[in-house]
Amino acid sequence: MSVNVIRYEFEGAIRWGVAKAGLVTPIDGEYATTADFLKVHSAQTLAGVGGGTLAESSVRCLSPVTRNQQFVCQGANYRQHMIESGLNPDEKTYNMIFTKATSCMTGAYEPVIRPAAVKLLDYEVELGLVFSRDITSKVRVTDANLHEFIAGIVIVNDYSARDVQIPQMQFYKGKSFRSFGPVGPYLCLLDASEIGVLGELDLQLSVNGEIRQKDNTRNLVYGPAETLTELSGVQDFHVGDLLATGTPSGCALSVPSPGKQKIAALLPEHKKWAMFHKIQLKRTQYLKPGDVVETSIRCAEAGIDLGVQRNAVVQGV
Amino acid sequence: MSVNVIRYEFEGAIRWGVAKAGLVTPIDGEYATTADFLKVHSAQTLAGVGGGTLAESSVRCLSPVTRNQQFVCQGANYRQHMIESGLNPDEKTYNMIFTKATSCMTGAYEPVIRPAAVKLLDYEVELGLVFSRDITSKVRVTDANLHEFIAGIVIVNDYSARDVQIPQMQFYKGKSFRSFGPVGPYLCLLDASEIGVLGELDLQLSVNGEIRQKDNTRNLVYGPAETLTELSGVQDFHVGDLLATGTPSGCALSVPSPGKQKIAALLPEHKKWAMFHKIQLKRTQYLKPGDVVETSIRCAEAGIDLGVQRNAVVQGV
Repeated sequence: MSVNVIRYEFEGAIRWGVAKAGLVTPIDGEYATTADFLKVHSAQTLAGVGGGTLAESSVRCLSPVTRNQQFVCQGANYRQHMIESGLNPDEKTYNMIFTKATSCMTGAYEPVIRPAAVKLLDYEVELGLVFSRDITSKVRVTDANLHEFIAGIVIVNDYSARDVQIPQMQFYKGKSFRSFGPVGPYLCLLDASEIGVLGELDLQLSVNGEIRQKDNTRNLVYGPAETLTELSGVQDFHVGDLLATGTPSGCALSVPSPGKQKIAALLPEHKKWAMFHKIQLKRTQYLKPGDVVETSIRCAEAGIDLGVQRNAVVQGV
Repeated sequence: MSVNVIRYEFEGAIRWGVAKAGLVTPIDGEYATTADFLKVHSAQTLAGVGGGTLAESSVRCLSPVTRNQQFVCQGANYRQHMIESGLNPDEKTYNMIFTKATSCMTGAYEPVIRPAAVKLLDYEVELGLVFSRDITSKVRVTDANLHEFIAGIVIVNDYSARDVQIPQMQFYKGKSFRSFGPVGPYLCLLDASEIGVLGELDLQLSVNGEIRQKDNTRNLVYGPAETLTELSGVQDFHVGDLLATGTPSGCALSVPSPGKQKIAALLPEHKKWAMFHKIQLKRTQYLKPGDVVETSIRCAEAGIDLGVQRNAVVQGV
């Protein structure tokens, strides 16, 4: 049975607990990192823990993935998102990978800060996978052994400054501003028999109550098993690391059709980006101070609910 | 006075030492990470250490930057490199930032492994800056206070699988294969009065004795102070983190002129990349198993010498 773990601050101390029905049951021990926690705990070890003693509303929820871990991301990985961008998901030839600075990780209910120079702040709800073991060489991951590599799942919002990310080509900087990566509220630890739920999760994101993104992980282009297989041939992962699996359609960013992109490619750079800014600035979907973004990931049939993440947009300096 | 620090393995133990004239003087204490080492040591604390007891040739040289640290990189950051790519360095509008997975860091004399699927393995000599302190909010870094942020400098070779990096748009994966980031041999700790040398260093890279890259850090487009100022407004850094500052011209990669790029942009994706592969595969500069790559960074006038990095290219599986 899955277990929702929460990392939290209460009376000045940082602790881990099991969250259930609005109550938190503290877990014995101190764990400085997600790696330290997952080396001791799993859905099995925590199966009996419950009947909490602490109101969840009385604690400050922290990211269940700590900043020492890696934060690796997939791009353009939902079918409808690709179709809207003028791409054919059946002809996709590579699994796009980038990273976010881990200092952008925050708790699920923290504000997202729009830097003063950023006008095109966008949202991206994503399913995050948290590793249960180290990977230090190429491994073949399949749906049959995937449960050996994934400890649990989290909600990630991959906030992005489109006016930095898109003109600067490399996504890292525009996606790494402090507060641009809320994670949680819960790390939902899965037991081996539940791993199939990774392909059956409903994702939803709303802004001020209006639904903007709504999709299901069955529409992922590169699934977890093939992604882990490929990346294990490139780099190491460690227990507690985070892989965000990409976002569905419905972002504020309007991607021009491939035909329009070809025309834009003929323009001088400064004209191309002036046009980009002009078109994007007309889109009212970009986030403004005062907006509230809510995200959820769940599978009602399987009894899996990763909670609701809620971030108010505030103006930075 | 600068001090060349070496991290090494000897008789099964990992240690830190001062390297001078082919001899290593072990430094007391155990430091699991570069952060741990730099919290205790600097050019000042090690100024008197020398007269080594161990032949440098008898130890295995390890990366002086450990894998827990960040590995952040600048792209397209030398004037001549930009001019050869058909760009005007005086009109550059942004500082391109990406990352490499830290599992690609290796020692200075380790082999670089060309994965079986990679045909376009390229080299990039770069000056690496190692941070002396944490940065957790926006700071204004100038040439006058830069010495407060930089502990020392290292040679980095940013090996790149161009056939992964370029068609997949985001640089991370094609630059993160294991062994693609040798660092060292030395971490050259600088004292405050020497920080000006960051703008006076000669970089050189040769393949099988033939010089391919040769430039000086005075030709950097975005210098260390302005880069740290900007990035401090985006993300946190920690003592021991590594910033690689970009590579000069002379790589194997042939970047088409902006005019040819505009024509290529009109082609269907698969035709565009077929043409890219065809053109690049004709270039004999790409690395093959058996090639030996040597890099050096120094400023003779200032008595600064970061050593010689030497990697043999081997075929991976």
